[in-house]
Amino acid sequence: MDNRQIVLVSRPVGVPQPSHFELRTSAVPQLRDAEFLVENLYLSVDPAQRGYVNDENNYAPPVPLGSVMRAMAVGRVIDSRHADFKVGEYLYGWFGWQDYCVCQPSALLRRVDPRQASLSAGAGLLGINGLTAYLALQDIGRPKSGETVVVTAAAGAVGSFVGQLAKLAGCRTVAVVGSDEKGTQCVTQYGYDAYVNYHGPAAEMLRDACPKGIDIFFDNVAGDLADTIIRQMNWFGRVVKCGTVSIPVWVPPPQGPRIDREILTRRLRVEGFIIFDHVARFDSAAAELARLLAEGKLRYDEDIENDIAQAPQALVDVYAGRNRGKKLVKLRDVAG
Amino acid sequence: MDNRQIVLVSRPVGVPQPSHFELRTSAVPQLRDAEFLVENLYLSVDPAQRGYVNDENNYAPPVPLGSVMRAMAVGRVIDSRHADFKVGEYLYGWFGWQDYCVCQPSALLRRVDPRQASLSAGAGLLGINGLTAYLALQDIGRPKSGETVVVTAAAGAVGSFVGQLAKLAGCRTVAVVGSDEKGTQCVTQYGYDAYVNYHGPAAEMLRDACPKGIDIFFDNVAGDLADTIIRQMNWFGRVVKCGTVSIPVWVPPPQGPRIDREILTRRLRVEGFIIFDHVARFDSAAAELARLLAEGKLRYDEDIENDIAQAPQALVDVYAGRNRGKKLVKLRDVAG
Repeated sequence: MDNRQIVLVSRPVGVPQPSHFELRTSAVPQLRDAEFLVENLYLSVDPAQRGYVNDENNYAPPVPLGSVMRAMAVGRVIDSRHADFKVGEYLYGWFGWQDYCVCQPSALLRRVDPRQASLSAGAGLLGINGLTAYLALQDIGRPKSGETVVVTAAAGAVGSFVGQLAKLAGCRTVAVVGSDEKGTQCVTQYGYDAYVNYHGPAAEMLRDACPKGIDIFFDNVAGDLADTIIRQMNWFGRVVKCGTVSIPVWVPPPQGPRIDREILTRRLRVEGFIIFDHVARFDSAAAELARLLAEGKLRYDEDIENDIAQAPQALVDVYAGRNRGKKLVKLRDVAG
Repeated sequence: MDNRQIVLVSRPVGVPQPSHFELRTSAVPQLRDAEFLVENLYLSVDPAQRGYVNDENNYAPPVPLGSVMRAMAVGRVIDSRHADFKVGEYLYGWFGWQDYCVCQPSALLRRVDPRQASLSAGAGLLGINGLTAYLALQDIGRPKSGETVVVTAAAGAVGSFVGQLAKLAGCRTVAVVGSDEKGTQCVTQYGYDAYVNYHGPAAEMLRDACPKGIDIFFDNVAGDLADTIIRQMNWFGRVVKCGTVSIPVWVPPPQGPRIDREILTRRLRVEGFIIFDHVARFDSAAAELARLLAEGKLRYDEDIENDIAQAPQALVDVYAGRNRGKKLVKLRDVAG
């Protein structure tokens, strides 16, 4: 059986480009004892993948050159030599940018229940994006009714859920985005109370949009925009450091205004969040998100490619903010 | 009755200098109803006073020009028209750099019990310095036995207690200081396990001193040193932002390497601490510190001037790291 794979062939500095990858085809190896075979249905495209291929300090060793690109995916077990994994089960895990993945149990992130939501949602709302929004907002943001929450990359796969969940918690929600089109999407589709287009005078627009200051800053971008936002925070505000997509290269670290004095005088709590620290809570959090979805209280959008060869370009597009919803690469339909 | 006062006469940028102050003498006003009169015994000299006089963003409005310098002090009630404040009581509060302070109850920070410790300790160990060390280490640092704690300005009025308290909690303690003399003081007097003189190759020395990485960074200085330390922190480390003495001027904010990626990938929690948010806990915390002192488990050092005219220079000296222990200005002895 042929396995198409997106293989990392050179080491990027900053955001990986299509030239760093090659599409190769190889045979699927035989399963050994305690392994199972997953057929991928939806490949996930995530900003975090930049960190998987760079030599920068990160929370996981970089993908070796010549290996299939590390990625999450939703797939289906089509063969198994492990008693806990049955043919026909749907899974979400570290299955890579490829058609088929020979897996050990450690590859699993979460079992996908097609009755909870569509299979593709298993890689977005009920995958790391929705789970990150839910758990990071709850753990670090700690939203209280009446507070103001500012979200960067607010129309993105995480930000769109943060806005909706903060709104459900009774907060005023303000989206920071790169275009009026996305801002309008945030307000009309994700219930944000206001948006700020950062190509305008961001500090001023932010003050208008946040008349009572900012209590929670859910940051997916870092950089100049974060500098501006942190300087409008209220005392005892919380900053969720979830992503840094506005910074293309971290080695050497770019310079910016020091924030120590802001943290000190405003008594801010600034905290980093990596979703993979919280795998034990995925099922309970996903169940809550699925319940909100079923009640019509959450919506999600997907931006789907249909060709595995497009995966590297899709990542570039996500970094450029050109996606409209969760970026996925769909490999095949499920028959039955 | 004559009242010598250190009055702010011009607005400093950065660290205030003696030229920004004048020593003036005025008459002590008559007490009105519900007021009481404090005779100051020990004036406190604190890095935080820089923030009280600058026009920078801060947690309190700046001292108006022509006013007595805002400062804490330990004093004694010598006259009272308030039922809760009796002549002869010792108090610690916002009594200013002056001989006498006409007070309302809001000036009080804490009543000083001379049986707990010496009166001067009421402005140091049992004042904001010891209380900051105790509460910030407990609330934000959350030390666990076996963890490594790095303290900047480690020989200072706060840092010396942080080291001792972290050691009592079972941590490895590493002092970061500006001279070998202070480093030796930290090790021999405050029980630090090791010290790093930041005039040497700090990153390398720090790695040697912290073979298991850094779990808690109690930061009193900010700047380059903090940049170096944060890059050696362990996952889920805590950073207490308590002071920024290495940065002379914050407007405009100085540039430094962005730390977002460190916070994110190391899952750090960086939090600002202002002791005045915690006044309700002063008495219980001071009682615990006094108990440790009585048991011989804590020591403190004082660096005492005896002339009120020296107060502004004393502040400059604290910023330059020239003090040896808590800087105080002693105005008079208590007779009986």
